[in-house]
Amino acid sequence: MMIRITFPDGSLKEYNKGISSLEIAEQISPQLAKEVYAATVNGEVWDLTRPINGDATIRLHKWEDEAARHAFWHSSAHLMAEALESLYPGIKFGIGPAIENGFYYDVDPGDGKTITEADLAAVENKMKELAAKKLVYKRKEVSKKEAMDYFTKKGDDYKTELISELEDGTISLYTQGNFTDLCRGPHLPTTEPIKAIKLTSVAGAYWRGNENKKMLTRIYGITYPKQKMLDEYLVLLEEARKRDHRRIGKELELFTFSQKVGMGLPLWLPRGADIRQNLIDYLTSVLRKRGYKIVTTPHIGNVNLYKLSGHFEKYGTSSFRPMSTPQEGEQFMLKPMNCPHHCEIYNSTPHSYKELPLRMAEFGTVYRYEQSGELHGLTRVRSFTQDDAHHFCRPDQLREEFKSIIDLILYILRILNFNDYTAQISLRDPDNKEKYIGTDENWEKAERDIIVAAGEKNLETTVVPGEAAFYGPKLDFMVKDAIGRKWQLGTIQVDYNLPERFDLTYNGSDNQKHRPVMIHRTIFGSLERFVAVLIENSAGKFPLWLAPEKAVILPISEKFNDYALKVLEILNNSDICTLIDDRSEKIGKKIRDNELRRIPYLLIIGEKEAVSGTVAVRKQGEGDRGSMTVEDFANFIKAEIKKETAL
Amino acid sequence: MMIRITFPDGSLKEYNKGISSLEIAEQISPQLAKEVYAATVNGEVWDLTRPINGDATIRLHKWEDEAARHAFWHSSAHLMAEALESLYPGIKFGIGPAIENGFYYDVDPGDGKTITEADLAAVENKMKELAAKKLVYKRKEVSKKEAMDYFTKKGDDYKTELISELEDGTISLYTQGNFTDLCRGPHLPTTEPIKAIKLTSVAGAYWRGNENKKMLTRIYGITYPKQKMLDEYLVLLEEARKRDHRRIGKELELFTFSQKVGMGLPLWLPRGADIRQNLIDYLTSVLRKRGYKIVTTPHIGNVNLYKLSGHFEKYGTSSFRPMSTPQEGEQFMLKPMNCPHHCEIYNSTPHSYKELPLRMAEFGTVYRYEQSGELHGLTRVRSFTQDDAHHFCRPDQLREEFKSIIDLILYILRILNFNDYTAQISLRDPDNKEKYIGTDENWEKAERDIIVAAGEKNLETTVVPGEAAFYGPKLDFMVKDAIGRKWQLGTIQVDYNLPERFDLTYNGSDNQKHRPVMIHRTIFGSLERFVAVLIENSAGKFPLWLAPEKAVILPISEKFNDYALKVLEILNNSDICTLIDDRSEKIGKKIRDNELRRIPYLLIIGEKEAVSGTVAVRKQGEGDRGSMTVEDFANFIKAEIKKETAL
Repeated sequence: MMIRITFPDGSLKEYNKGISSLEIAEQISPQLAKEVYAATVNGEVWDLTRPINGDATIRLHKWEDEAARHAFWHSSAHLMAEALESLYPGIKFGIGPAIENGFYYDVDPGDGKTITEADLAAVENKMKELAAKKLVYKRKEVSKKEAMDYFTKKGDDYKTELISELEDGTISLYTQGNFTDLCRGPHLPTTEPIKAIKLTSVAGAYWRGNENKKMLTRIYGITYPKQKMLDEYLVLLEEARKRDHRRIGKELELFTFSQKVGMGLPLWLPRGADIRQNLIDYLTSVLRKRGYKIVTTPHIGNVNLYKLSGHFEKYGTSSFRPMSTPQEGEQFMLKPMNCPHHCEIYNSTPHSYKELPLRMAEFGTVYRYEQSGELHGLTRVRSFTQDDAHHFCRPDQLREEFKSIIDLILYILRILNFNDYTAQISLRDPDNKEKYIGTDENWEKAERDIIVAAGEKNLETTVVPGEAAFYGPKLDFMVKDAIGRKWQLGTIQVDYNLPERFDLTYNGSDNQKHRPVMIHRTIFGSLERFVAVLIENSAGKFPLWLAPEKAVILPISEKFNDYALKVLEILNNSDICTLIDDRSEKIGKKIRDNELRRIPYLLIIGEKEAVSGTVAVRKQGEGDRGSMTVEDFANFIKAEIKKETAL
Repeated sequence: MMIRITFPDGSLKEYNKGISSLEIAEQISPQLAKEVYAATVNGEVWDLTRPINGDATIRLHKWEDEAARHAFWHSSAHLMAEALESLYPGIKFGIGPAIENGFYYDVDPGDGKTITEADLAAVENKMKELAAKKLVYKRKEVSKKEAMDYFTKKGDDYKTELISELEDGTISLYTQGNFTDLCRGPHLPTTEPIKAIKLTSVAGAYWRGNENKKMLTRIYGITYPKQKMLDEYLVLLEEARKRDHRRIGKELELFTFSQKVGMGLPLWLPRGADIRQNLIDYLTSVLRKRGYKIVTTPHIGNVNLYKLSGHFEKYGTSSFRPMSTPQEGEQFMLKPMNCPHHCEIYNSTPHSYKELPLRMAEFGTVYRYEQSGELHGLTRVRSFTQDDAHHFCRPDQLREEFKSIIDLILYILRILNFNDYTAQISLRDPDNKEKYIGTDENWEKAERDIIVAAGEKNLETTVVPGEAAFYGPKLDFMVKDAIGRKWQLGTIQVDYNLPERFDLTYNGSDNQKHRPVMIHRTIFGSLERFVAVLIENSAGKFPLWLAPEKAVILPISEKFNDYALKVLEILNNSDICTLIDDRSEKIGKKIRDNELRRIPYLLIIGEKEAVSGTVAVRKQGEGDRGSMTVEDFANFIKAEIKKETAL
């Protein structure tokens, strides 16, 4: 019997029933078959070897696809488990998933036994030995009882605990070589492609993330089909380690955290607070020129405000919880979003159609309770300041307004030298329209507006149906940093929901009340996250306009400290934040030390400079720039900053 | 038998036992006796007529003293009560205190009866009639039972409720004419001095401030010994009404409040947010030049942080209460103060004696739960942003550091044209040293340092023992506004407590650990309150540098709208925030309307201006200033702002 297979380009071929994705790939080209690691069949990711028994759509996944890497790394986790079991008989296994880069397995080596980083080389070698055997990954669907019997007999308590929570009829096992694991798959056909292997680190991890349960040993690793790819990754990893914003944040005294204040609540030290403020000041001045009005609202609101907006349902118990007051029955919440406050400002005065669009911006701090295990430097925090704005506009203004926001975001990204960006358009799931609020007409118009606006701005976009917010479609921006990593930044979202809930209106030219549309947008996303991205992108070497100090004065001996103070005063009075290094150290050491501080300019002064009222200018990382008068230097810095911040 | 009376200047006289303060005043001079309204005897404010039976210190209070006005207005409240009782037989009385300006009485006229503002003239007349009778206020100490019997018989339920909560042996009644009240006193000798009477308003007030209890009628009034004083007060009252920041804040769209967000939580509208930001930006630039480091900290902290600092004890239940999180046993609080966060920043790195003083500033928002009845515009709110700073210094640096802060505060007050200010030095109560923490040596040094520093800065100060904070002495600043009202602004406080609690240290030149002293200081107090003061002082006519918009462009007809837009763009690109009024109205009306908006400059443009690239400049409230090119105008504005903000 023949089945009909539809390919992503819409083309259609007939094959024998029971053919596998791998066989289909081989028929297309033997080379292709070597490059694919998984397939999506009828919307579900499958083992390449799983037989297809009916008409289907198919997408073959090469390395570039996340689904391919996922199968590759998940299979590698099983391979590592087999290696561990052969080296540590009696070892028990928790969970072993693929992650963004590689995989891990949580294991329990048994009482009194440990696995440390020193042991990893031996595990790697065993994995290579096993992989070379080209072991086949075999899928087997089993009953709950069979699964339970198998792992009970093996004595793997963690697996039996997991199985006990699964539904009968949904359970599968995968076996390669001597190792069998409880697993949904999908996996590679064999271990053969796993050519390059690196186990990267060992950490402790509580079973099921619960600190009252046993601490297991988490072993991280990564694998590739080619050694060259692994080598490149390890270079990137080392580079990323050097750029880690937590490390640089500490080294350059940008921010800190305090257990007493609370985890995930950043304390901005002076130099970090200055960078943050420079971003705010710059963006504010750009926004003002683009007709934004800046507002300031409190960080809390009555719970009823969030019941009205719908945020209470989402954040009321899973985040920071409501606080009571001496007044009975009254409760307030930390704001999880700024929008309800902005709606209330909109509602504080009547509006005419002539006033719209109304662009309301705030650097608004919001609070979300992330689990402590998920906190990470400035990128996952519990309080963060969004560069938030809400555009209240007429439906007929939506497309133009959307385009103006794309313009603004691209302008800011260029200023910040993020020239490699992509965007994702998230639309409604056309098969589940009931999940969304708002009329079909509005949705169709808004989706069309976003697609057309993005097209007119020549944005490179991917369109993903089903990823819209329940209140409207959106456009998300991602940038690539200096070492090729992608970071999600700002977003533009259309919203029909809050205008309804807050009964926002404007008087139309027909003198009737109409409902405005709201656009939510951020450019940076949050200042905390964005400063982290800036640090990782620049390795802490900020552009002049963002740097907390623009220059440091290095007198070559104590004799010139007075002149140094004079220079300092002139520069600081010109609002050019400058430091002085008046330690009694040799000038060579002072230069070396201050180069490490990444202050953009070093001003060396001695006899010649003191007499002529000049400074010898040295650019950080680049060397000598000759002498200039202090006033010329001040003007030079101002001109440089102007150049950096204007396109 | 003779007793010895000591006067405030230290002089001492002997009198017969049982002499009253009034008799002492008469012996000094009959004129003085007419000018005093109360006396402080051995630290307690007394009726002038109360006999003194032992050695005592005495201070006689003339009108200038708050104690004199308090007795005067409290006696006036009783007088009003008597008048009300004669006009509304059966009326019941709640409480009737003196307030900052005048007095009120909460009354219950009886079921179905009301007292409105239309009725007040009759009450005033009755009061005048009674006052002219020179009724004597007679004090009588009574037992709880006597008091209870009296008011039970009278049927005054509110008074009996109050009495039921008093301790026997502490109860006194005052009687004048036909009226007797439960009262601690003190009062005037007679009603004679109450010459000028004005009942100002009627409001509703729940009995005991509890909205579940009965709504009483609160009648406000004010009285003076001379009609001229009352007339002056009423003029001031009218002037204050016109300057009320709540009224102007609404009219000029500076801020708003939303019931949904919560009472007492200001929402800064764009124009108000700009004024607030202009204050922040200006103060920040001054602070940077004075060596301050700006930090940014979250608005919340773990409750344990405030248990450590001692703030939990004060604010834990009487303010916004702690909030829980999905993690069991974990609680956070809105910050009532910024200091604990700054201590944690101090502790994030080690410090050497060479680094001190360390000046850490933050525009830090704090939260206090004021009772809803006490909320008042921007002056009493539930969230406010302090212009807060903490100076961490060595004990030997305290005096100089204190002087530098006085300098800074006086500098800022002069910039803001508050040239009439006073200061209060609050010291430890020398008789109750155990109420304070810290060594005698530190206290004596700190108090001496403050007194000497204030002296060296030629500050006009009053010194008040017993008013220090428990952790150290302080200096508070008051300014007089354009219509003579006093406003308390910033404060400088010495603190030995938090350095202990947070174990703050620095390495001394002896390489040992030492404890720094902390100075807390604000200049404005809070931005919310200060903007209110600025509004009331300027009646909404802000100085150019603070004004949200510097100019408004008024094209004389639509023909010149294009040129107007060109002018707008040039000015906004020069960061001179400018508006345009392109309504199709006559230019006369446009000028009148925009004068009312208090925008500092009106730029009128027509044919002549469009051709020559100029604007016709008009200064708000002052008239024509001639023509200049747009660029000249931009430079003129920048120069004016520089003049205003530099001394």
